[in-house]
Amino acid sequence: MNTTIDTPAAARSWTTLRDEKARRLALVEPWLEEGVLPRARIVDALQALVCPGDRVALEGDNQKQADFLSRALAQVEPKKVHDVHLLISSISRPEHLTLFERGIAHRVDFSFAGPQSLRVAQLLEDGQLEVGAIHTYVELYARMFVDLTPRVALLCAEQADRHGNLYTGPNTEDTPTIAEAAAFRHGIVIVQVNEIVDELPRVDIPGSWVDVVVEADRPFAVEPLFTRDPRHIGDLQVLTAMMVIRGIYEPYGVTSLNHGIGFDTAAIELILPTYGAELGLKGKICRNWTLNPHPTLIPAIESGWVDSVHCFGSEVGMEAYIAARPDVFFTGSDGSLRSNRVLCQLAGQYGVDLFIGSTLQIDGDANSSTVTRGRLAGFGGAPNMGHDPRGRRHASEAWLKLMSPQGANDGGASGIARGHKLVVQLAETYKKGGEPTFVEALDAVAVGEKSGMPIAPVMIYGDDVSHVVTEEGIAYLHKAQGTEERRAALAAVAGVTPIGLRADPARTAELRRRGIVAYPEDLGIRRAQAKRSMLAARSIDDLVEWSGGLYAPPARFRSW
Amino acid sequence: MNTTIDTPAAARSWTTLRDEKARRLALVEPWLEEGVLPRARIVDALQALVCPGDRVALEGDNQKQADFLSRALAQVEPKKVHDVHLLISSISRPEHLTLFERGIAHRVDFSFAGPQSLRVAQLLEDGQLEVGAIHTYVELYARMFVDLTPRVALLCAEQADRHGNLYTGPNTEDTPTIAEAAAFRHGIVIVQVNEIVDELPRVDIPGSWVDVVVEADRPFAVEPLFTRDPRHIGDLQVLTAMMVIRGIYEPYGVTSLNHGIGFDTAAIELILPTYGAELGLKGKICRNWTLNPHPTLIPAIESGWVDSVHCFGSEVGMEAYIAARPDVFFTGSDGSLRSNRVLCQLAGQYGVDLFIGSTLQIDGDANSSTVTRGRLAGFGGAPNMGHDPRGRRHASEAWLKLMSPQGANDGGASGIARGHKLVVQLAETYKKGGEPTFVEALDAVAVGEKSGMPIAPVMIYGDDVSHVVTEEGIAYLHKAQGTEERRAALAAVAGVTPIGLRADPARTAELRRRGIVAYPEDLGIRRAQAKRSMLAARSIDDLVEWSGGLYAPPARFRSW
Repeated sequence: MNTTIDTPAAARSWTTLRDEKARRLALVEPWLEEGVLPRARIVDALQALVCPGDRVALEGDNQKQADFLSRALAQVEPKKVHDVHLLISSISRPEHLTLFERGIAHRVDFSFAGPQSLRVAQLLEDGQLEVGAIHTYVELYARMFVDLTPRVALLCAEQADRHGNLYTGPNTEDTPTIAEAAAFRHGIVIVQVNEIVDELPRVDIPGSWVDVVVEADRPFAVEPLFTRDPRHIGDLQVLTAMMVIRGIYEPYGVTSLNHGIGFDTAAIELILPTYGAELGLKGKICRNWTLNPHPTLIPAIESGWVDSVHCFGSEVGMEAYIAARPDVFFTGSDGSLRSNRVLCQLAGQYGVDLFIGSTLQIDGDANSSTVTRGRLAGFGGAPNMGHDPRGRRHASEAWLKLMSPQGANDGGASGIARGHKLVVQLAETYKKGGEPTFVEALDAVAVGEKSGMPIAPVMIYGDDVSHVVTEEGIAYLHKAQGTEERRAALAAVAGVTPIGLRADPARTAELRRRGIVAYPEDLGIRRAQAKRSMLAARSIDDLVEWSGGLYAPPARFRSW
Repeated sequence: MNTTIDTPAAARSWTTLRDEKARRLALVEPWLEEGVLPRARIVDALQALVCPGDRVALEGDNQKQADFLSRALAQVEPKKVHDVHLLISSISRPEHLTLFERGIAHRVDFSFAGPQSLRVAQLLEDGQLEVGAIHTYVELYARMFVDLTPRVALLCAEQADRHGNLYTGPNTEDTPTIAEAAAFRHGIVIVQVNEIVDELPRVDIPGSWVDVVVEADRPFAVEPLFTRDPRHIGDLQVLTAMMVIRGIYEPYGVTSLNHGIGFDTAAIELILPTYGAELGLKGKICRNWTLNPHPTLIPAIESGWVDSVHCFGSEVGMEAYIAARPDVFFTGSDGSLRSNRVLCQLAGQYGVDLFIGSTLQIDGDANSSTVTRGRLAGFGGAPNMGHDPRGRRHASEAWLKLMSPQGANDGGASGIARGHKLVVQLAETYKKGGEPTFVEALDAVAVGEKSGMPIAPVMIYGDDVSHVVTEEGIAYLHKAQGTEERRAALAAVAGVTPIGLRADPARTAELRRRGIVAYPEDLGIRRAQAKRSMLAARSIDDLVEWSGGLYAPPARFRSW
C-alpha cells in the first residue's frame, strides 16, 4: 500500500455515537418501569438525555404536536441544556419559541412557521434565534439522513404497548421517518403517547426503534387545518373552479392530482358532483388523489368520483368516515388511516400529474409566495409538489400534453423533448383587504434580504408554473413562446393590478385566439352560471349529511 | 342539498378491496401453521391468492431478489393466473421473463432491466410483454400510492418471527415501502424469508403488515453489484479523479454527495486519502455520503474522511465491516445496516449537493444515456439524483456557487435567483471498443422510437448537467452563457469524437481563460502525475487489509 496516506484504522473509536447513547440512557434507566418513564420524571429525563449543542428533532408536524415533550423541554434548566439545534417541520406552538427565549435552543432548521412567523422574525432580529435554513418538508427529512441526523428525537403517537411498539392512529404523518433517522444513527428516541395499552390495534413503528416511552398528561394537540366551511365559498370561487375543470382538468385529462388547501380548491372539490357530472367527466378526471382528507372531498367520494386518496396526515373529525371508506383511503387492519408525509409528498411529486394551489402574491414572471412583510412563514409542502420534477421519466396523457413541440423545454435542438407537470396557481386578482395579488416585486424578496437569507423565499418559481387561474381567466403559460409572451399572458388575467395594467387589449385578443389565454366565455362558461347553488354542499351540515353522519366536525365548525 | 347530483352513498359497498382480500386469504387459511405457509404449498397458494389481471409487486430490487417467490410464480398454471400486471423495480432474473413467455404476466411497470434488457426488447417486439412505463426507482414507488397500488406484494426478508415481524438484515432496500403500499391498501403481503426464528435481532417491518410468511428453499439471491476491483482502474481514471477533486470538489466545497457506481467514481474514492490529503482537503470535502457501501470507500473511511454514509441497499461482503463502523453507517441495535432505497433516494435528491456518475453516451447538448441499441435497460436511480431538484429551497455553499449572477437560471428579470445542484457526468471520450462516447444523436432516441415510447429514454438531461469531465478536461457548463457557448464548452472536452471535432481551438482557448473549460494543466495537474500508484488501494486484497480483515469479498473477487 501507499505509504503517504493518512492515519491507520486502529487509532480511533468507531462507536462514539452508540457509546454516548448508552451512557445517557443509563442515567434514566433507574427511573424506567418496563421501559416506561413516569410522567413526573420527564424534565429530569430530558436534562439527562439532551446535551448542550445537540441536534434535537421535535415532532411539530404540520398537524400533530408532541406538545407534552415540547412543554417539558421548555422547562429544563438552561444551565444544563442550552444551544440545542432544533429540527422541526412546523414551528406552531408558543413553547417552541420559548425554547429560544430561554436559550435552551439557539439554531433551528424548519419548514413552516405559520402562526408563529412574526415571533420567529422578531427572535431572529434580536439574535436569540439563528436559522439554519427554511426547507420544504421532505428536504428537511432528507437532510436527517445526511448532515442533520438527530441526536435525540421527541416523537408523538396515540398508543404504545409494553414493548415500545407504537400505534400512531390516523396521524402517522412524520413519525416513522424521524424515528428511522434517529434510531438507526444511534439517536435517542423518546415518544409521548396518549396511553399505554396491552395490545395495539396495529403496529406503525416497531418497539426496537424506541428507547423511552412516556404517557402524556393529555392527548397530543392537533388542529383541523384542512377543514374549509363551504359557507365561505363565494360565487367568484365557483367561477374559478368551473374554469379549472373546463379549461384544465377536462382538456388535459387530469386523473391524478394534488389539491392544496384553500377555499378555491374546496370549490373545485364541491362542484365535481354537479358541474363535473353535467360535463360527463365522472371517471375521466380526478380519480387518484394525494392530499389530506379534506371534508369538502366527501360529496365527490360519495358520488363515486374518487378511486383513491393517499394522505400526508389526517383531519380532525374525519376518522369514522375514513374508516368506513376503506376502498378509497389507505387504512390499516384496525380500520383507521395510515398517513405518511414523506411517502405522500413523494407521490405528490412524482406520481401525480397536477398540483394546484392558492397563493397570496404573484409577480409578473409568475413567481409566487405566501410570505408577506414581517413574517418568516416558510414553505411547508408546496415547493415539492409545485414544481416540474425533472427526475420524472414516465409519461402520461396529461404530462405529454405539456410537451413543447420543438423540444424547447429542454433547451436543445437534439430532438429530445419531455413533458411537464401541470403546476397551477390560483389567485384572485385582489385580496380581501384591497391589496393586489399581482405585484411588481414579491414581498418575499424584501423579507429575504432583511432576514439575511441567501436567496428570496419564493414558494413556487415562475418557470415551473404551467397555468395561472384568476377570476378573469386562465393563462396557459406553458403554451407561450418566450419570456415576453409569458408575461403578456399573465398580464391578461391579472385584472386591474399593476401587472394587469400592462396588458394590451389587442395582444390579449391575439393570445385568446391562439388559446394561450382563455376567458370564461372562451370556455363556454357564463359568469351568471357561477353561483353558490352549484356547490354539492353549502355548509358543514351538508357535508355531515353527505357522509351519512360519519363526519364529525369539530365544535368550532358546528352551527347547530 | 342540490338535487341534480349523483348517486347517494348507500348504493354501493365501500369494502370491496378488504372483502376480496379476506376471501382469498380464507382459501389458504387451512394450509397455514401459525401464519406460516409450508414451502411445498407455495404454488397452490399463489394460484389462490393471485387472480388474473391483478397488479402484483414482485420484489426484484436493485440488489436482493424474492427469487423463491418469483420461481414459484413462474410455475402457476396460466389458465388459473394470467395477465398479471407486474410492478418490479429490476427485471434481473430469467424467471421474471418466463412469466411473460408463459402468459402469467402481460404488462410491466419497471425501472431497470440490466442483464435482461435484450430479452425485454424481444418480448416487447413479439407482443408477449407490454410496457406501462419505465421509471426511475422512486417514481415507481410513488405510483404505488397513486394509480399503481399493488393487489399482491411478493417480498423478501432474512428472518420472520412467529408473529410475522420481519428482519431484513442490511438489505432493507425497498421492502418497507412496498409493504406499506400493499398492506394499507388491502393488498395481500406474502414474504419469503431465509429462516423463521423465535426472536428477531430487530424488527424492520411490523407483523401486522404481513399476511403470509414462507420459508424459502435457499437464501434470497443478491449480487455484489457495487464492488469494483481497483486492479481495473487505469491511469486515465486516476487523472479524471484528480480533476474532479481539484476542479470541482475543492473549489465548490462539496461536503455532501452521491457517487454512482463505476471505476471512474471508485478512483475518486481511492485517491481521497492520497491526493485529497496532499491538498489538505480532509474534513473540508466529501463528509456526508448517500450511496451503497462501496468497498472502495473503505480507505477514505479508515482515514477519517467520512462522517456518514446512508445507503440505498447493502453490498455483499461488507456486513462485518459496516457493523464495526456504526459511527459512519446507519445501523440497528443489532449492529447491522438499515438501508432504505426510498429514503436514500430522497436524501440523494434533496439532501446532497452533488451527483456524479459515469455514462456511455453524451450528445452535443450534454444529454446522456446508458441505453445502447437493441437494449431497453431502463434508468434505475440516476434520474432522481442526476437532476436539479427544483423543489429545493435550502441553500448551501456549493449550491449557491452555481447561482447564475443575473438570476438567468429562473428565466426572469424579477431579481429572483436560485442555486443549482452539481450534476456531474464522467466519461472517457472513447469507449473500450473504440466507439465514441460523444455522439451526434443518442442511441436512446432510436431505441425509444423503435419501442414506441412516447419520449426518448434519456438518463440525464443536458440542461440539468452542470459539469462534464473527460480525460481531456472539465466543461463548466453552468458558467456558459447560452446554448451555443454550452456546446462549445462541451466540444472542448470531447476529444476527437464527432462532437469534439466541432471545437475551435481559438474559442477553446478563450473558454479556458474565462474558466468555462479547464484542462489538467489549468488545474495544476500534471498528466504524468496521474498514476495508479496514487490509489490508496490497488487491489481487493488491499481493501481487505485497509478494513482490518473485516471486509469479506465474494469469491469471484478473490485472487488469493
